[in-house]
Amino acid sequence: MSTLIETELYTQQEFLSQLVDHRLLIPSGEQGVYGRGMAFERVRTAVDSLITRMSSPDRPETPRFPPLIPRRTLERAGYLKSFPNLCGAVFSFKGKESAALDLLERANRGDDWGVHLSMTDVVLTPAACYPAYPAIAHRGPLPEGGLTLDLGASYVFRNEPSPDPARLQVFHQREMVRMGRPDDVLQWRELWMSRAQDVFAHLELDAKLDLASDPFFGRGGKLLANSQRAQSLKFEVLVPIVCTERTAVASFNYHQEHFGSSFGIQLHDGGVAHTACLGFGLERITLALFREHGLDTNTWPPSVLGRLGV
Amino acid sequence: MSTLIETELYTQQEFLSQLVDHRLLIPSGEQGVYGRGMAFERVRTAVDSLITRMSSPDRPETPRFPPLIPRRTLERAGYLKSFPNLCGAVFSFKGKESAALDLLERANRGDDWGVHLSMTDVVLTPAACYPAYPAIAHRGPLPEGGLTLDLGASYVFRNEPSPDPARLQVFHQREMVRMGRPDDVLQWRELWMSRAQDVFAHLELDAKLDLASDPFFGRGGKLLANSQRAQSLKFEVLVPIVCTERTAVASFNYHQEHFGSSFGIQLHDGGVAHTACLGFGLERITLALFREHGLDTNTWPPSVLGRLGV
Repeated sequence: MSTLIETELYTQQEFLSQLVDHRLLIPSGEQGVYGRGMAFERVRTAVDSLITRMSSPDRPETPRFPPLIPRRTLERAGYLKSFPNLCGAVFSFKGKESAALDLLERANRGDDWGVHLSMTDVVLTPAACYPAYPAIAHRGPLPEGGLTLDLGASYVFRNEPSPDPARLQVFHQREMVRMGRPDDVLQWRELWMSRAQDVFAHLELDAKLDLASDPFFGRGGKLLANSQRAQSLKFEVLVPIVCTERTAVASFNYHQEHFGSSFGIQLHDGGVAHTACLGFGLERITLALFREHGLDTNTWPPSVLGRLGV
Repeated sequence: MSTLIETELYTQQEFLSQLVDHRLLIPSGEQGVYGRGMAFERVRTAVDSLITRMSSPDRPETPRFPPLIPRRTLERAGYLKSFPNLCGAVFSFKGKESAALDLLERANRGDDWGVHLSMTDVVLTPAACYPAYPAIAHRGPLPEGGLTLDLGASYVFRNEPSPDPARLQVFHQREMVRMGRPDDVLQWRELWMSRAQDVFAHLELDAKLDLASDPFFGRGGKLLANSQRAQSLKFEVLVPIVCTERTAVASFNYHQEHFGSSFGIQLHDGGVAHTACLGFGLERITLALFREHGLDTNTWPPSVLGRLGV
């Protein structure tokens, strides 16, 4: 283990201890799964409201989706090709009384009781926009000018337990989606990259917009990531949270025809819709604020508190 | 199939179709998993706010928890004994590249890809109060007078796919918890049963408070349910939604020492804390309102709209 990595781990643990001591995060016993204390939540929901105010000129539709989607939606979205390692499938018990008894005995002994479970038809939502694509496709062709959705703060899941308090297994993605012609979609993404930079400047965070790529699985993943960069499909806003490296707190993604053709989303004229989505990681932004301005909001710059309205 | 059951099924499907036609619910393709349209969400969050206002005289702590808990918490809570059939365990992929390829091919063929997954250390939250017990126990003995928590609207999971729009696999439980001496806990439950009846009266719903029991699994379940009734451990408020039978929209539960001893929650004087919790089913209350007052909120009684503040 290099000295750099050791230092980073120490910093993560130290920051996590401070967050727990100040009752900002509440440990559950599992890495990446935390309750959130009252002060943390006040800031998180204030950031959420700030983004809602920024989104309102788009006059978006605001449907809401639960943290589970049909397994079929995950399959159609192509998630299993890109990120099989990150998905979470829901397994349940369908057995009879004797099997239930054995399940319970195994659990009491600390043995694996998963042998009694089988895969259901639902999985955890890995990206807040996924449920929106089949839902919109189902309504028929898009209106002229396309469609803008503000999906609010949705819980998403990533199977990546980590000691880093900025890398959660379950967190709130504050997500917006645009569907339409390539130009509409790309212009909207540009607008939001500029809005996001304004927001982070207002919150007095040291934010940097950069070209990015997804952590695609496997050897083929590198090629996919290179192609994604070459086509400027993904941008991120990064801020310092714990490590020496910055952490992404927002991403701006152009999917081209991917979801339009996977789910059959049609333009007004019958062509395949292009889509873009953008997401703000609410817990990460909140952590960045506590890291930058201190663990007690009473000592934060009045300018920041004013903009958050807390 | 009896005529009664046929009629009920028809009514469920008819009501669901109406909800979908009015863009109140958004079908996902799986039973019991729906998106929520803008008008539905306006009402649901208004009901949530109404309950928040009712809760504020208790001066509760308001931590928030995600929809996943450690598997260990589920085991310690005794859920696997009572409701093994309802739990949802999260399975993920830990394999290498060749296994990922086989997983993908199976998914593309429509075959079971669950064989490549294994049980993780997290499960879906089955009841909103579960994460609170170990979190509070971890802090040490309760303050004198005990503790009141308002956990807000939490997503919970039940593995029970159903055509009934009032029986969801994933929904918002608006939950409160009281920990303390038996008298404190029982008095608080009494207070909330009375508050709840007021709320439903204000919303002009035909609500009925009744002794109830949980749907415990298996042959032993009947005995558990009888004992629960005999000790008046569970009450429910029931309203008409779809079927001829009323549906529970709120429950008021006294756990005696169960969670206190399972998780080691101590009173100020070192004794084992008693606990009670109560939960409002936000989607069910919202459905009941649309059923009672009509599918278009513009036609609702001004008195109801006023009380909801919508």
